[in-house]
Amino acid sequence: MDRVYLIGAGPGSADLITLRGARVLGRSRVVLHDALVDEQLQVLGPQARWVDVGKRGFTDSTAQARINDLLVEEARGGGIVVRLKGGDPSIFGRLDEELEALARAGIACEVVPGVTAAIAAAADLRRPLTRRGSGRSVALVTAMTRSGALVAARGADTEVFYMAGRQLGALAGRLIQAGWTPDTPATVVSRAGWPDRLESDHLVGTLEDACVLHGGRPTVVIVGIGAAPLDGGATASSEAGPVSASALPNALAPPAPTLPAAPPKP
Amino acid sequence: MDRVYLIGAGPGSADLITLRGARVLGRSRVVLHDALVDEQLQVLGPQARWVDVGKRGFTDSTAQARINDLLVEEARGGGIVVRLKGGDPSIFGRLDEELEALARAGIACEVVPGVTAAIAAAADLRRPLTRRGSGRSVALVTAMTRSGALVAARGADTEVFYMAGRQLGALAGRLIQAGWTPDTPATVVSRAGWPDRLESDHLVGTLEDACVLHGGRPTVVIVGIGAAPLDGGATASSEAGPVSASALPNALAPPAPTLPAAPPKP
Repeated sequence: MDRVYLIGAGPGSADLITLRGARVLGRSRVVLHDALVDEQLQVLGPQARWVDVGKRGFTDSTAQARINDLLVEEARGGGIVVRLKGGDPSIFGRLDEELEALARAGIACEVVPGVTAAIAAAADLRRPLTRRGSGRSVALVTAMTRSGALVAARGADTEVFYMAGRQLGALAGRLIQAGWTPDTPATVVSRAGWPDRLESDHLVGTLEDACVLHGGRPTVVIVGIGAAPLDGGATASSEAGPVSASALPNALAPPAPTLPAAPPKP
Repeated sequence: MDRVYLIGAGPGSADLITLRGARVLGRSRVVLHDALVDEQLQVLGPQARWVDVGKRGFTDSTAQARINDLLVEEARGGGIVVRLKGGDPSIFGRLDEELEALARAGIACEVVPGVTAAIAAAADLRRPLTRRGSGRSVALVTAMTRSGALVAARGADTEVFYMAGRQLGALAGRLIQAGWTPDTPATVVSRAGWPDRLESDHLVGTLEDACVLHGGRPTVVIVGIGAAPLDGGATASSEAGPVSASALPNALAPPAPTLPAAPPKP
């Protein structure tokens, strides 16, 4: 029996996946992927059967149970099975439920990390999440509890809220209750890491203004020092942009066999 | 004039860099890299001049000023200049100082995100940093202040401490002062993402025991629910392992030109 790889695709464009993740896709038999994963990733695994398990909605626990069952079933079919998740699987990826299902079935698995949305948003904005002297900590938080209640705290110098896009006004109220002042910088980025990302600067007290621009899009909200622009205007307004994808084969193909071999297992 | 790319190499093995980062390396003229970056990455940019700017130590602010100056000087020499950092540049990467130096010099730049050590450690351990129902937040923290004091808080369900490897006993004391109970799970991972990573499970009260195993190695300490093993034994003891690096050219070379083009700038 082969094994299951739970891979972080990164939060947007296909080229934010790691080399390790791309390599596993190229050897896989089947890929069970989230709706949020860039369809262009399919070119990295053209031999595989790609199954979109995201369409039914991940908030439904029945849907998650069906995904767990499908993962086990496909793993028993042999070959390499990939569970491809947007962002990083260990951060709000519901990885625990899938790992436990695989463990119960006795199926070997490995997690390949990815770029999480907060990190991609910081790169897009050119605003580091930690700052020397003033930003010693960054928390990645979902404001939504299992029961659907909205909560917020003030536990780090910068907090990045995931999945809060539909409730920015309520989030602002909770942030102020938790001790953030209304004039704290708050930046909203939707579709971080994608070509059509949008970003807007607010204060905690005026966060609700972001609803119109970002409505209906996957959103992260950065609150605190990490939302503040740097001195000198090193912001997302610069002219820089990613290089063209066409350089990829030349950059990678010849030297790749000398990359490090698989690590020994402890 | 070309531009500067500040790229996260990921925290270990060369294959944890993103496709985007690898592509830029393949087009670069010069690469200024940290000491912690895998030397095997050089095969992705054999045409570039590779300069190790990490050897002098990053805790010295004079050394950082020299790196800033070198970055500006190289950027003025034309071509693509890469600043390659271990992990992700926006998380404890001292990105702010380099972005500000580039902005002052009027040099266009872009940040390419990477996998940060906490995320790689979670993948290595197969223990998600967030847990449905019990882990709504994860904080990435440096326990060390600018003045050299050691501090800790309890601001999230899981906290991951960077750069605390030399002071685990003192960190344990601070954690207990901050409200963590001595029986809270605490897992130490050194060289996360590398083939020779080491991991050990402790409690906050016995964290100091980890000093011997991990001494002198780059270390992250996971405290709280994210350090707890999952049900069913989905731990790092499974037999799974990364695929061989030799699959890389076949996986990437043919389809790469159809990857998404450079995103439009807002």
